[in-house]
Amino acid sequence: MAQKPGIPKGTRDFSPGEVAKRQYIFGIIKGNFERFGYQPIETPSFENSETLMGKYGEEGDRLIFKILNSGDFLEKVSEEELLSKNPKQLTSKISEKALRYDLTVPFARYVVQHQNDIEFPFKRYQIQPVWRADRPQKGRFREFFQCDADVVGSKSLWQEVELVQLYDAVFSELGLDGVTIKINNRKILSGIAEVIGAKDKLIDFTVALDKLDKIGEDGVRKEMTDKGISAEAIKKIQPLFQFSGSIQKKLEKLEQMLSGSDEGLKGVQELHFICDKIAALGLDKSILDLDVTLARGLNYYTGAIFEVAPPKAVLMGSVGGGGRYDDLTGIFGLKNMSGVGISFGLDRIYLVLEELGLFPATVNATSKVLFVNYGENEALYAMKAIMKLRKSGVKAELYPDNVKVGKQFQHADKREIPFVVIVGDQEMIDEKFTLKNLATGDQELVDFGKLEQILKE
Amino acid sequence: MAQKPGIPKGTRDFSPGEVAKRQYIFGIIKGNFERFGYQPIETPSFENSETLMGKYGEEGDRLIFKILNSGDFLEKVSEEELLSKNPKQLTSKISEKALRYDLTVPFARYVVQHQNDIEFPFKRYQIQPVWRADRPQKGRFREFFQCDADVVGSKSLWQEVELVQLYDAVFSELGLDGVTIKINNRKILSGIAEVIGAKDKLIDFTVALDKLDKIGEDGVRKEMTDKGISAEAIKKIQPLFQFSGSIQKKLEKLEQMLSGSDEGLKGVQELHFICDKIAALGLDKSILDLDVTLARGLNYYTGAIFEVAPPKAVLMGSVGGGGRYDDLTGIFGLKNMSGVGISFGLDRIYLVLEELGLFPATVNATSKVLFVNYGENEALYAMKAIMKLRKSGVKAELYPDNVKVGKQFQHADKREIPFVVIVGDQEMIDEKFTLKNLATGDQELVDFGKLEQILKE
Repeated sequence: MAQKPGIPKGTRDFSPGEVAKRQYIFGIIKGNFERFGYQPIETPSFENSETLMGKYGEEGDRLIFKILNSGDFLEKVSEEELLSKNPKQLTSKISEKALRYDLTVPFARYVVQHQNDIEFPFKRYQIQPVWRADRPQKGRFREFFQCDADVVGSKSLWQEVELVQLYDAVFSELGLDGVTIKINNRKILSGIAEVIGAKDKLIDFTVALDKLDKIGEDGVRKEMTDKGISAEAIKKIQPLFQFSGSIQKKLEKLEQMLSGSDEGLKGVQELHFICDKIAALGLDKSILDLDVTLARGLNYYTGAIFEVAPPKAVLMGSVGGGGRYDDLTGIFGLKNMSGVGISFGLDRIYLVLEELGLFPATVNATSKVLFVNYGENEALYAMKAIMKLRKSGVKAELYPDNVKVGKQFQHADKREIPFVVIVGDQEMIDEKFTLKNLATGDQELVDFGKLEQILKE
Repeated sequence: MAQKPGIPKGTRDFSPGEVAKRQYIFGIIKGNFERFGYQPIETPSFENSETLMGKYGEEGDRLIFKILNSGDFLEKVSEEELLSKNPKQLTSKISEKALRYDLTVPFARYVVQHQNDIEFPFKRYQIQPVWRADRPQKGRFREFFQCDADVVGSKSLWQEVELVQLYDAVFSELGLDGVTIKINNRKILSGIAEVIGAKDKLIDFTVALDKLDKIGEDGVRKEMTDKGISAEAIKKIQPLFQFSGSIQKKLEKLEQMLSGSDEGLKGVQELHFICDKIAALGLDKSILDLDVTLARGLNYYTGAIFEVAPPKAVLMGSVGGGGRYDDLTGIFGLKNMSGVGISFGLDRIYLVLEELGLFPATVNATSKVLFVNYGENEALYAMKAIMKLRKSGVKAELYPDNVKVGKQFQHADKREIPFVVIVGDQEMIDEKFTLKNLATGDQELVDFGKLEQILKE
């Protein structure tokens, strides 16, 4: 009995049209990464388990795909261990490798491992798939690509400036108008928590604040109260609930509010540097905005925090995010290596471009021309032309079988191949080609030079 | 205690320079695939285990990396099953997914699963990593890329013609001179076995013949004798041991030899078609040769068999291979779907290009120019120029920190960045840039237009 084919849940096959569109996005991201001086690295799909485990919290550990040891993986396991039926403990006995969960930890591992060969500051980009055993749902997959650009080895805020520009460059080239690059700073969040006397509740405070968008002012206030933040403290952050105006205005307000916190003022100063530079340099199609509620993996970031929202016309979550982390590589034994980076969310960007109809019509995986096959001699004549066309960069094909012409035209039609060339006896004698434009139905008899010219357009 | 970072054996990190070279090869392969009308697909990194298991023989099954089920993977396993300590049996209980072992089986699965959406004949290419739990050794890895182009749904021999041309186009564009594209046909091997009366020993016969290169004539004779092939039969294939001359000559000899086998003659006829067409169309830098000893996974192929040997100056195994298989998708329930395809061996091609010094000097991952950082104002002035340069496609960077100039120059030097721009007070007043060519040491004061012009060269 033949197997009914299928793929694991949360994974995807990509058809030619989808691959072409994905490659279009990758191409623009990669092109900009490189023009901005980022250099590509690639790391293995699986790492030693100890490299990954414990880096993403308990939930993360659970979501890491583990690879079973090859051969007799039970050899070193005692009966007692087997019968304990403790999955966590047994996993460490029968699995030594795990699939990459993100690109940041492998990058940190790479930097430490190759530190003697790397010239710092090191600007690297990495575009590779990652795997998470998450419950699949709309827009969430178990295998997906991450596109990351990070710099390590410098605390210069010019990097942050450049990352804002990089977001703008990529999204502008993709034709997205009105993307909002939101920026915040961990030091500002710490500062606020400090001045309202809730320094010990920083996480609770920011997690609640981060939800302002979703649960509104009252919701945030309630959550903060539930978490034990005092009414007085909550009153102090009242201004943040209606935080509007230009970045300059917001920074002025924050400066007043944070006058009692050195750390908070440092954050304001950092944001000033970044935002002033962006104001002086200008952005193409994006908007930079200061969002004090932005927290994103707070435990991780120590300085700037970024998140990119798609144009308002599209109802979708962020299409990118990132920030600065002062101790990227400490966990692997290399201290004082500050890093800052951003990530692009390929799948969401794809959906946004699709929804707004922004994929150029030229982005497809099909051929420009199909030569009809009228038999061996005609096919050989056609092949000579096809060879030359391919050499000049035209995607060209011969229909492989000498079947009814109607069927061959239908093939071109279904494949959305725009041109068909017919070669019969007369064309061979005249050294010509009959070229048919399938969209207009126009047909003309041309020599090779003309054929090439039209198809290269 | 910090972990000492490392990666699993048989896997690799790729540095920026290596990624750039690999991308160069991928780019040429991909470009040619597309000009030849092949369309890209991508399949998930892991498949359901039943899709892969049993498709590569017992050894293959062993070498497939299995993924441990997430969550409580022991839940459904009985104590008895645990204590049996039977790895094979237990694997099927605790693992349902496995990493892709090659691209052919996932492709077959894809074709069957999406058969209603595919317009046949379907020319697809796929460039993705595969994983094998093989013992790592020089040039053999546990994670490596395969680059495959296959056509399914047509038996036309024009496909074989085109695949020879495709090999020639790729290797010629890579600058490889004198690659030998070896061709054979399974039907010829069957025919020979038939006429010498060893039809039941086809596999033993071809496995021995395939070793002619390595163990010589006497070795092959001995192996055949050991396998029970009669002295008389071995005498009959004597001519194959000194099989030389043009393809036409070889085909004539084969035709005589195989006059008693319909299948053998069919093979000769097929090779005639392919080789005649190639003779008429010509190849660029490659040589086509008929190699009757070529067997390559004989169980698999049913018609043409291909293998590509690097130029003779390089001592290395094949850099590509492929063939026709008449029943690609039968195992998944779709009968009569003939396929023919070829594969490029990225890692070996990389080594060959490296050995012959064929990577163009422009293939690197570094920037064209580094702007020295003399402080905030100078950096802002530099950034304005950098923005414009990047827009016109120049890879440009600002050194992020205002440190000693010597250190910044050293950075450019180590990164092999060819140009450095210096911007101080005077340059800012004059709206100029001091451009230094690090290779020649030449330095000149230029306006932006000139700067852009030089850097775009």
